[in-house]
Amino acid sequence: MKSIPTFLFYLTGLLAVAGAAETPRSEKLYGLVLHGGAGVIDRKALTAEKEAEYRAKLTEAREAGYTVLQRGGTALDAVIATIVILEDSPLFNAGKGAVLAADGKCELDASVMDGRTQTAGAVAGVRHIKNPITLARAVMEKSPHVMLSGDGAEQFAKQQGYTLVPNEYFQTEERRVQLEKAKQREAAKKSARLETPDESHLRRIARYGTVGCVALDQAGNLAAGTSTGGMTNKKFGRIGDAPIIGAGTYAANATCAVSATGWGEYFIRVGVARDIAAQLEYKGAGLAEAAAVTLAKVASLGGDGGVIAINRQGQVTMPFNTTGMYRGYRLSNGKNAIAIFGETP
Amino acid sequence: MKSIPTFLFYLTGLLAVAGAAETPRSEKLYGLVLHGGAGVIDRKALTAEKEAEYRAKLTEAREAGYTVLQRGGTALDAVIATIVILEDSPLFNAGKGAVLAADGKCELDASVMDGRTQTAGAVAGVRHIKNPITLARAVMEKSPHVMLSGDGAEQFAKQQGYTLVPNEYFQTEERRVQLEKAKQREAAKKSARLETPDESHLRRIARYGTVGCVALDQAGNLAAGTSTGGMTNKKFGRIGDAPIIGAGTYAANATCAVSATGWGEYFIRVGVARDIAAQLEYKGAGLAEAAAVTLAKVASLGGDGGVIAINRQGQVTMPFNTTGMYRGYRLSNGKNAIAIFGETP
Repeated sequence: MKSIPTFLFYLTGLLAVAGAAETPRSEKLYGLVLHGGAGVIDRKALTAEKEAEYRAKLTEAREAGYTVLQRGGTALDAVIATIVILEDSPLFNAGKGAVLAADGKCELDASVMDGRTQTAGAVAGVRHIKNPITLARAVMEKSPHVMLSGDGAEQFAKQQGYTLVPNEYFQTEERRVQLEKAKQREAAKKSARLETPDESHLRRIARYGTVGCVALDQAGNLAAGTSTGGMTNKKFGRIGDAPIIGAGTYAANATCAVSATGWGEYFIRVGVARDIAAQLEYKGAGLAEAAAVTLAKVASLGGDGGVIAINRQGQVTMPFNTTGMYRGYRLSNGKNAIAIFGETP
Repeated sequence: MKSIPTFLFYLTGLLAVAGAAETPRSEKLYGLVLHGGAGVIDRKALTAEKEAEYRAKLTEAREAGYTVLQRGGTALDAVIATIVILEDSPLFNAGKGAVLAADGKCELDASVMDGRTQTAGAVAGVRHIKNPITLARAVMEKSPHVMLSGDGAEQFAKQQGYTLVPNEYFQTEERRVQLEKAKQREAAKKSARLETPDESHLRRIARYGTVGCVALDQAGNLAAGTSTGGMTNKKFGRIGDAPIIGAGTYAANATCAVSATGWGEYFIRVGVARDIAAQLEYKGAGLAEAAAVTLAKVASLGGDGGVIAINRQGQVTMPFNTTGMYRGYRLSNGKNAIAIFGETP
């Protein structure tokens, strides 16, 4: 497992962490961090125009959540407000613009956790819910369950008064092209007598992100949420880390709120979000230190991605060990940033 | 949340822990622990004949796994061998004899994790797989994924050469009666204008267990597995803790192997299996101490259940905060037990 590429991932992870934002402790600080996915973001392919679009949408989403906090709203409301905007944008792999599964349909996962009560909600494999993050919240607040899946989750949505949208609402031309390319690569592999997609292929198609937000409100409560369209050319009802409480999402007032993005299988195995919180809880680690240790674990197994986290003192971190992660934060002390590559925000 | 019942749960948890087995450290010790579910097990309703049946089946399953270990087999093989026997028995809520969902069908979840590689596999909501634990293992070993769900998981099974069984294979008369009773209670609640099932109702129907096994082999490797039929009268594609890596199942050679059973929603929120391992990893806690702390967390939120765990030194623990937990263990130093109620095994 300790191959040279693994070592490079590890190193990249540490460098990314070195660029993470760390703010001084303050009782009354509030704010939020958001991400729009980590992965191979090609600097050359990202035109100035496209980059401006990403930055504008990340800013819009951040400000929507921040306004909730500024007006005294809850961390949970801020997380939802931010994620809904990212879901509604075709730029990100969540809600509209989600990647296409092998059958050409979008299949969406989302989860949310309230740090105040440690209650949580998640949905996996829904196909007709415009904003899966709001359904995850409904599961948390209106059902005795944490996780609902597939058609059953949509039956619950109908009971809750949701209007289902046709799957075509989510589908975009860009994602159809990505699916076609993925299928061509898969076919090429098969004709080369490789029965299963190899790791480098998976590495490429796993890179189309996720969105997430973590927030600390004026009352000192934390919340976290994550939403995704999963993997291009996904088969077999695969569930990644985004709807798994403890992997893609975790929040507890006693520790921190975390949302993850990356190669889901590795994030589940490490239990990324919970692992970061556990280091704060059981060894008194700092937030940035804990996130770095956890991402290094992911890298040591061969995976990659990034996380965003905030604690009750308003410290934030947003490390990643990929070439880029769409991300940003804003705190009530005025500190804020929007970033894509390894620049120190 | 800190009601009197909660306090009692907490206390029962500690008492159960006090009765847990703890063995001296030894490099070459190997063995396994298994459970057949924790819940309200009524001493009076459990006839001597029925109790003997449970003890015999638990013993048979334990010996099947132990034999694998004794012959130098892997912890993973031992876990599968043990769980397959529990799945095949109608006595436990897993495989044959699983509880029925609201639509009268059995819907099965399982997961497995190999502590040597920290690889994991899980299936959720399968309806035609005789031994879901073996499919969880196939997901781990033959797919690039960790978690597959529903029809998709069964498509993968077919690709792997599985023969699907009709859902009727799993269904038993006893479980049909339980479903009818659950539906009658639900209807009574609704006619009493209570729209959602209340907690005490959920508490009852959540109690029909899960099966699991954790093992340490002669090479010093750990593995854990869990399999369940979920909740009686289950709706909306609900997914509990059993197929969630970090909640129902976790194994890492560096810490321990854990399988959980109980009220799944609370076990997901706490991330039970990973939380126990995290205490060993980050604060050097003992296995029994860590399991007790984690179960106390579950209790403080209002949930209950039990766990089994083993570490690389062959220490074992099997605490619960319900009236009983079908459980047993056997170690290569000769120590062994089969137990149901709070007796010190």
